[in-house]
Amino acid sequence: MSKLQTVKPDATGEMKALIEAMGRKARAAAHQLAATAGRVRNSALLAMADGIEAAQDQLLAANGLDVDQARQDELAPAMVSRLTLSPKKIAAMTQCVREVASQVDPVGQTIEAYDRPNGLRIEKRRVPIGVVGIIYESRPNVTTDAAALCLKSGNATILRGGKEVIHTNGVLADVIGKALASAGLSPDAVQIVGTTDRNAVKALVQAEGLVDLVIPRGGESLIRAVVEQATVPVIKHYKGVCHVYIDRDADPDMAVKVAVSAKVDGYMVCNTAECILVHKDVASQVLPRIAMEFRKAGVQMRADSRSLGLLQNAKLATDADWGQEFLDLIVAIRQVNSLGEAITFINQYGSGHTDAIITRNITAADKFTTEVDSASVMVNASTRWADGYEYGLGAEIGISTDKIHARGPMGAADLCTYKFIVTGDGHIRQ
Amino acid sequence: MSKLQTVKPDATGEMKALIEAMGRKARAAAHQLAATAGRVRNSALLAMADGIEAAQDQLLAANGLDVDQARQDELAPAMVSRLTLSPKKIAAMTQCVREVASQVDPVGQTIEAYDRPNGLRIEKRRVPIGVVGIIYESRPNVTTDAAALCLKSGNATILRGGKEVIHTNGVLADVIGKALASAGLSPDAVQIVGTTDRNAVKALVQAEGLVDLVIPRGGESLIRAVVEQATVPVIKHYKGVCHVYIDRDADPDMAVKVAVSAKVDGYMVCNTAECILVHKDVASQVLPRIAMEFRKAGVQMRADSRSLGLLQNAKLATDADWGQEFLDLIVAIRQVNSLGEAITFINQYGSGHTDAIITRNITAADKFTTEVDSASVMVNASTRWADGYEYGLGAEIGISTDKIHARGPMGAADLCTYKFIVTGDGHIRQ
Repeated sequence: MSKLQTVKPDATGEMKALIEAMGRKARAAAHQLAATAGRVRNSALLAMADGIEAAQDQLLAANGLDVDQARQDELAPAMVSRLTLSPKKIAAMTQCVREVASQVDPVGQTIEAYDRPNGLRIEKRRVPIGVVGIIYESRPNVTTDAAALCLKSGNATILRGGKEVIHTNGVLADVIGKALASAGLSPDAVQIVGTTDRNAVKALVQAEGLVDLVIPRGGESLIRAVVEQATVPVIKHYKGVCHVYIDRDADPDMAVKVAVSAKVDGYMVCNTAECILVHKDVASQVLPRIAMEFRKAGVQMRADSRSLGLLQNAKLATDADWGQEFLDLIVAIRQVNSLGEAITFINQYGSGHTDAIITRNITAADKFTTEVDSASVMVNASTRWADGYEYGLGAEIGISTDKIHARGPMGAADLCTYKFIVTGDGHIRQ
Repeated sequence: MSKLQTVKPDATGEMKALIEAMGRKARAAAHQLAATAGRVRNSALLAMADGIEAAQDQLLAANGLDVDQARQDELAPAMVSRLTLSPKKIAAMTQCVREVASQVDPVGQTIEAYDRPNGLRIEKRRVPIGVVGIIYESRPNVTTDAAALCLKSGNATILRGGKEVIHTNGVLADVIGKALASAGLSPDAVQIVGTTDRNAVKALVQAEGLVDLVIPRGGESLIRAVVEQATVPVIKHYKGVCHVYIDRDADPDMAVKVAVSAKVDGYMVCNTAECILVHKDVASQVLPRIAMEFRKAGVQMRADSRSLGLLQNAKLATDADWGQEFLDLIVAIRQVNSLGEAITFINQYGSGHTDAIITRNITAADKFTTEVDSASVMVNASTRWADGYEYGLGAEIGISTDKIHARGPMGAADLCTYKFIVTGDGHIRQ
């Protein structure tokens, strides 16, 4: 891995040259990686986990510098909390890297293979994408998660974290570089952009031919900037505005339990429920019970006018509350006249991330799962289950809200593409 | 289907409004399509094929206007030839639509399904992408191929063909609209942009939330304009610079046959061989024979200096000839010292489309297929086989040179995404 850049040139041209130099090295490393056995990539991953553990003191010291700077810059407490490392967080980082190492190797898997009538054999084989750029914000574990998942899937990576985490990433860069070298891999397989110049992001997302895919992870402004500037393909990991719809044929106990848990048990993550829709025929049965649980948990309810009377302490929702990603102890509640109205509402106001139906009616469940246009559609289960680990994909690089390439939780296999290998015996096509 | 726009406003804002209106109608149609049975989509396809046949006279008349205009505008003969319809070409169009109708329905297929230890059932189900924009040039059959494949895969489509084919597309728009209506589908499922204003392309590739994917098919300038302006995901169908590498362990007869056929039998298509690489140890054995065949077929040879003596009538290649897409009776020929050099050369000068090795050596074949970073890699077979129909995908929407979502020949199933359907029994995640 190249050392962090200490020069911080301002000119766009210099950033372009910097990123292109990194891209050329990444491309060469990608060609090497595509030809490596899985055990070599795994041994680099295990060395990386060991290295992170061994560097704990250095990591905490470097992270302290980042945290001090963040406080001086008066960053939001939530942001400071995300970038702050602890021995426990470091242990979680290493555990994730070891888990990735233990996963089945996605590279080289045969997706399908068949013979054609003319005797040609067609194999569709899973192979690395090549060079993947990850653009993210302040969480140091994204550095190690992304590096690990890209390495597992045989991709070279260029990581561009936020400037808030630059010292921490400097130590991680050294650790990862040594781990790669110990396994005989090029240190260029994982490179961290060490400059905080924003032009580096622009250069990265426009490095066609050198970067095959960019994944931005973060808030709306980051994603927007990447999408507008990019000429390289992008897979967006965007917001979650998840709904729980309680059908007329729902089990009331289950409905109350799932709706409340989907908000309360992890309200700051993208798969939390932001809006509860209730069929009008069961509203009087379930809404008062839901309201009681939400009040106990300190959740502020914003409801449509006809539900207000069933929800003690709720306030009237405004138009802005529908489709809002609160990521807080706030929930929107609304009655619908039919399953069809619930589906239309979700397709209009949801973010295509995850939506759930609670019902005992198989026809209603089928209609909901077919017509709700979201990456994950839950039947009698909390939206909170939308997660790569819970789906058995191992660690996830994030949750795609795009429909192209990978949708929903993305694991190592989703960082692969495929190639067709066609075998003949002198077959010509005239 | 909306009638072709006869107004041609020039302002960007008006084009944006036009495309957004089309996009909203397409989105509504996409929601309808996602819930339709395959037999309904197939009946629309069969009605479309019948309608094209019935409209043959109108089509030929409208196409005559386009051809006259093209001649007046002094378009290149190759371009005029591509846009000119004939009864034979119309028959091929209808046959393709009927073949698409007869394919297995990709929508609703279970890609995988499994139970998790906690009892949750996870199903990854193939579903339509939603709204697909196709931007292309002058071939009228792209209109019907693209409409058919998108409809088969449950997507609404917005088609934007070149201005050269505007009258022909007007008749096709009517035919397709009637076919959709006859099957009870919304005519908005296939819309053709009827204006020739270039701002419409810009508006289409920036219609986030309304258009889920854009596929540009055409020359470099078209693709470049789309990629630079797009904020919607793009899958590029770009050029083919295909290589045939004759290994030291090649069967000489097979090598000559495949190398020559890959150039001569269809030299104007993207999967033709543009460059023949030959291992130095077999150059004196195969190159004179290849040269004789190429001379017979009228192929101009451009060779590296050390091969010139083996190739009667060849001229010395310039640097620009390596990696050149000739699409003509021209071929580049070059010796390499090793398999590794061939792979490096192909990864540097190829376009990642299709490359072939001729060898009897299994180790060489494995190394070539693993390390050549192309969508299709052939062993002892012509590059000309890279084709959706030949791979058994049915008709193809084109050949993707991107690595994201779909790589190589793209059929109806590749116009789908997937969703996770997660079924529990009141499962909450705490």
